[in-house]
Amino acid sequence: MLALDDSAIARDGKILILAYDHGLEHGPTDFEGLEERMDPQTVFDVATHDAVTSIAVQKGIAEGYYPSYEDDVALVAKLNGTSNLWMGEPDSAVNCSVEYAADLGADAIGFTLYGGSNHEIEMAEEFRDAHEAAREYDLPSVMWSYPRGQGLKNDTSAGTIAYAARQALELGADVAKVKYPGSRDAMEHAVRAAGGPNGTKVIMSGGSKVSDEAFLESVKSVIDAGGAGLAVGRNIWQRENPTELLDALEQVIFEEASVDAALD
Amino acid sequence: MLALDDSAIARDGKILILAYDHGLEHGPTDFEGLEERMDPQTVFDVATHDAVTSIAVQKGIAEGYYPSYEDDVALVAKLNGTSNLWMGEPDSAVNCSVEYAADLGADAIGFTLYGGSNHEIEMAEEFRDAHEAAREYDLPSVMWSYPRGQGLKNDTSAGTIAYAARQALELGADVAKVKYPGSRDAMEHAVRAAGGPNGTKVIMSGGSKVSDEAFLESVKSVIDAGGAGLAVGRNIWQRENPTELLDALEQVIFEEASVDAALD
Amino acid sequence: MLALDDSAIARDGKILILAYDHGLEHGPTDFEGLEERMDPQTVFDVATHDAVTSIAVQKGIAEGYYPSYEDDVALVAKLNGTSNLWMGEPDSAVNCSVEYAADLGADAIGFTLYGGSNHEIEMAEEFRDAHEAAREYDLPSVMWSYPRGQGLKNDTSAGTIAYAARQALELGADVAKVKYPGSRDAMEHAVRAAGGPNGTKVIMSGGSKVSDEAFLESVKSVIDAGGAGLAVGRNIWQRENPTELLDALEQVIFEEASVDAALD
Amino acid sequence: MLALDDSAIARDGKILILAYDHGLEHGPTDFEGLEERMDPQTVFDVATHDAVTSIAVQKGIAEGYYPSYEDDVALVAKLNGTSNLWMGEPDSAVNCSVEYAADLGADAIGFTLYGGSNHEIEMAEEFRDAHEAAREYDLPSVMWSYPRGQGLKNDTSAGTIAYAARQALELGADVAKVKYPGSRDAMEHAVRAAGGPNGTKVIMSGGSKVSDEAFLESVKSVIDAGGAGLAVGRNIWQRENPTELLDALEQVIFEEASVDAALD
Amino acid sequence: MLALDDSAIARDGKILILAYDHGLEHGPTDFEGLEERMDPQTVFDVATHDAVTSIAVQKGIAEGYYPSYEDDVALVAKLNGTSNLWMGEPDSAVNCSVEYAADLGADAIGFTLYGGSNHEIEMAEEFRDAHEAAREYDLPSVMWSYPRGQGLKNDTSAGTIAYAARQALELGADVAKVKYPGSRDAMEHAVRAAGGPNGTKVIMSGGSKVSDEAFLESVKSVIDAGGAGLAVGRNIWQRENPTELLDALEQVIFEEASVDAALD
Repeated sequence: MLALDDSAIARDGKILILAYDHGLEHGPTDFEGLEERMDPQTVFDVATHDAVTSIAVQKGIAEGYYPSYEDDVALVAKLNGTSNLWMGEPDSAVNCSVEYAADLGADAIGFTLYGGSNHEIEMAEEFRDAHEAAREYDLPSVMWSYPRGQGLKNDTSAGTIAYAARQALELGADVAKVKYPGSRDAMEHAVRAAGGPNGTKVIMSGGSKVSDEAFLESVKSVIDAGGAGLAVGRNIWQRENPTELLDALEQVIFEEASVDAALD
Repeated sequence: MLALDDSAIARDGKILILAYDHGLEHGPTDFEGLEERMDPQTVFDVATHDAVTSIAVQKGIAEGYYPSYEDDVALVAKLNGTSNLWMGEPDSAVNCSVEYAADLGADAIGFTLYGGSNHEIEMAEEFRDAHEAAREYDLPSVMWSYPRGQGLKNDTSAGTIAYAARQALELGADVAKVKYPGSRDAMEHAVRAAGGPNGTKVIMSGGSKVSDEAFLESVKSVIDAGGAGLAVGRNIWQRENPTELLDALEQVIFEEASVDAALD
Repeated sequence: MLALDDSAIARDGKILILAYDHGLEHGPTDFEGLEERMDPQTVFDVATHDAVTSIAVQKGIAEGYYPSYEDDVALVAKLNGTSNLWMGEPDSAVNCSVEYAADLGADAIGFTLYGGSNHEIEMAEEFRDAHEAAREYDLPSVMWSYPRGQGLKNDTSAGTIAYAARQALELGADVAKVKYPGSRDAMEHAVRAAGGPNGTKVIMSGGSKVSDEAFLESVKSVIDAGGAGLAVGRNIWQRENPTELLDALEQVIFEEASVDAALD
Repeated sequence: MLALDDSAIARDGKILILAYDHGLEHGPTDFEGLEERMDPQTVFDVATHDAVTSIAVQKGIAEGYYPSYEDDVALVAKLNGTSNLWMGEPDSAVNCSVEYAADLGADAIGFTLYGGSNHEIEMAEEFRDAHEAAREYDLPSVMWSYPRGQGLKNDTSAGTIAYAARQALELGADVAKVKYPGSRDAMEHAVRAAGGPNGTKVIMSGGSKVSDEAFLESVKSVIDAGGAGLAVGRNIWQRENPTELLDALEQVIFEEASVDAALD
Repeated sequence: MLALDDSAIARDGKILILAYDHGLEHGPTDFEGLEERMDPQTVFDVATHDAVTSIAVQKGIAEGYYPSYEDDVALVAKLNGTSNLWMGEPDSAVNCSVEYAADLGADAIGFTLYGGSNHEIEMAEEFRDAHEAAREYDLPSVMWSYPRGQGLKNDTSAGTIAYAARQALELGADVAKVKYPGSRDAMEHAVRAAGGPNGTKVIMSGGSKVSDEAFLESVKSVIDAGGAGLAVGRNIWQRENPTELLDALEQVIFEEASVDAALD
């Protein structure tokens, strides 16, 4: 594992990734009611908030918009991803090479693995290539570790999320982005499964938009469970004014404040 | 994204691609009643019209005929394409490497993506390779972004066309060629989905032959919606004398004339 | 396209390929009643006739026998081909690399494409690699363009043969070998579909053995239709003494004689 | 075969591999009741016992934890492996290249082959690449030779285990890790099938946790049958205090003590 | 074709390959009743008999045992092969690269082609790579040409065996190893199909164990039919003392003795 404390994508060992690949993964639907967010510039502006340690986008958006923001925020180049126009067994196209990501100024690579999918093996081998190429550039790798597909029924059970975290560790990811398993205990289980203090950092995946308080509570329980932070998309940029919630997240993640204190 | 304003395939940021790959995609049927158009020279002659900013053809035609026209028109080397003799899930063979296209004098590459097809992932990865190789030659890429196949029912709904435009942006295409979604509003939605002013340029795909006025009206609404222009094939070269319509298109696209003014 | 007039496989822009890959494609059955023709030397001897501008064989036969004939006849190295022991959807193994063919002294490459087969896309991509590698050696490519398989019912209709010729042009073949579509008109259609005078040369595929006169009539109609000649196998080497027919073919193809005059 | 007597992973020609890839292959379930073993450091500590000649782990765990232990124990980099979230025909992703394993300080590579699986051929070819690359670094290869899948009913019969050992020999593995076939006679058969004294070394795979005595009896019969030792995972690290059993194993494997003597 | 008369694997243009890949292809079953033959050394000892011009084994066995015998017998490195644990459509893993085989001291490569199998095309392309790489090292190639699978009913008919021999010629094999087609006439047909005197050498595949006399009669008819010899496995090494039969084979193959004379 790379020492994330020295990495551009962490601050004091904590991580807040602003994820913005929904235009590819979900399509224009995710921007309903807030169409101006389809312009990546509006989300890069959000990413300049101090709470955000990196922004995660696909190649085209990095190429088009990151040059104006490279002094303000670190870049996680999300290497694979696919539209939901296609409705088969979970899989993901590798849309960007590591070499190209490095040229775009990436500070880390992002990579989805659908454990349990009929394509798990192929995806794991694509991750191998990406991971090893990233090491050539000293880039850490963040795995979107999402068990899904043929082999899975319930993909947010404590056992499944812990398995997802473990897979990230065994395969060499520096950070595992997993779904929230529903409780602090379950999250602690996942953090331990990822190898503990010297293992893979575990961060929570933000999911669809919920209330400020509910969201902060889950983030708080992740931090309390030893998680390293959060990757969040819709819960930030689907808000008219995300600054308030980012201020609160900064408190919870980096200052270890309580949710109540943070909401004040 | 590459700055298309400086590119050989745009003029004042506007684009008119004369597409001529129908012999491969549709076969001799498209030339019924106008067999002389099977001789590529007759279409290259049309492409010398000032309104045309580039001609898009497959490798063999570029190799055979472009040398005589390279001073008169820019070349979009269409890298993939397939006959309709085959009737399976939408897919497209990569018939030309970027290196070979560059040797042929290409000013840009063209690439089809069938989002929603069972072959979407494979095609996206082929596009990745083409896109990154094209960057080595400073060649922009034009994506024929056509959702089609297993996952799709209606491929010209506003949502689908906007998704197609977004996919082009996320994957790094400089220009997205999409079907006309039926209205100016829907086209504006697609242009916004492609990232807005600094994003991927959106152009309309010409489709099958219609009346001059109907065709110009749709082109006008594309321009009004912020689209960058048009790729047109049959609506030009299936006409006995395409000059008149090209004159009108020049007015609508480059001079922002009304359809009535252009038809005069 | 390469200028075939300067090529070793054409004479005065006309082509007569003696094809001898039947041992692979059809097996020993094709030699019934004339087993001595299984010895390639006997067919290479036939190929020394002045009417023959090249011989087309697979790698093993080129390697074993061409060294003794390289001063007497040009070589088309047929790169792909498959036994008919296998009875699935049409496909063809690539048995020889272009580099190896060039080392064997090839003057051109031969390549089969089964348009309409489930393997069309894979074969087209294999052709791309072969075509581009052949260009490195200045070798023209001859496409056996044979629509066949899942998508096809009648593979000698005028429309299908014209499509086959067009595919060869679009994909960059210098010569298209197509089945005889049954009439001079249909052949003219195919020649036009291949791009006309500056496009891909079209030659007729000989097919199974027929009478001298019937065969010469079809060849004559190909020449009259603007075709560049013929690839012939069984109609030559299944004859006890092929010289007489070759003499007649020379008259029809290179001297534009009538069939009656040629038969005299 | 490499001379294992000179290798870092053997001592006096005998082998005890501590296997710790269960987090990937079985998931967190294997750690139930002993969650602290999810921290790889606790198992690396176990591996410093003199009886252990190497530890076998996946890339991520080697990368994260081996640097602190490289003076204390040799490393078998297990190159392939897959989660059991996926439930299809047995297969295994190649998660680590040989080059990367060598950089991590590996003393040998480990590779699973599922003979009889629909993926046997693909896995054998992946092993070929790994084996030949490993030779470049003078690294021996240990094959987890586990017949399993479409072709198999009973995968621990004497015939199947001997076949597994033979496959390892024929394909070039230096060590074959096979399941215990149930008796000393059957194990002797497997050792002979692996080529005898100068062939591939055969070691027993530990399997799920059993009593100390039962476990030592099977190990003893392996040694008596001419086997080279043992790869053991759960039977060691699922114990609260593995030292006692490791002491006994050291007696049985390296001192050829009886089970009774070893248990004293 | 390479001139086999100058090759290490032939003597006076005749060939006797001792094949010993049964441990991989058939498993321990083939050694029942003669388990000592599982030790490759015992078979390499047999291969030192003057009648044997080469031994054919898989990579692991070549690596482990050939170094001690390289002055006594030539090596055919059998590059592909598969266990019969797997029971699908005939296919074969490529277990050894040509480069690696050359490093092991191989004098020729051996390669199986299952004509008529659903994997025929893939295997033919793997053979192409092996054949062309072998030429870099001046190594001849021996094709185990065994029609088998989806397309085949009776794989020892005269027509099928002749086709198998022809495929070897067309694809460039220097030697074709085919099943015995049942008669001298049928074997002559196969030899002619392989191109005659200057074509691919044809040798008979030994098959399962039969009586000395029956075996020698079939070998004699192969030699009389113009075949170049024999590849034999079980009929030699399944015998307690193979010397007597090898003495007789030497008479029949190299001295063109009658079976009666050879048996004396």
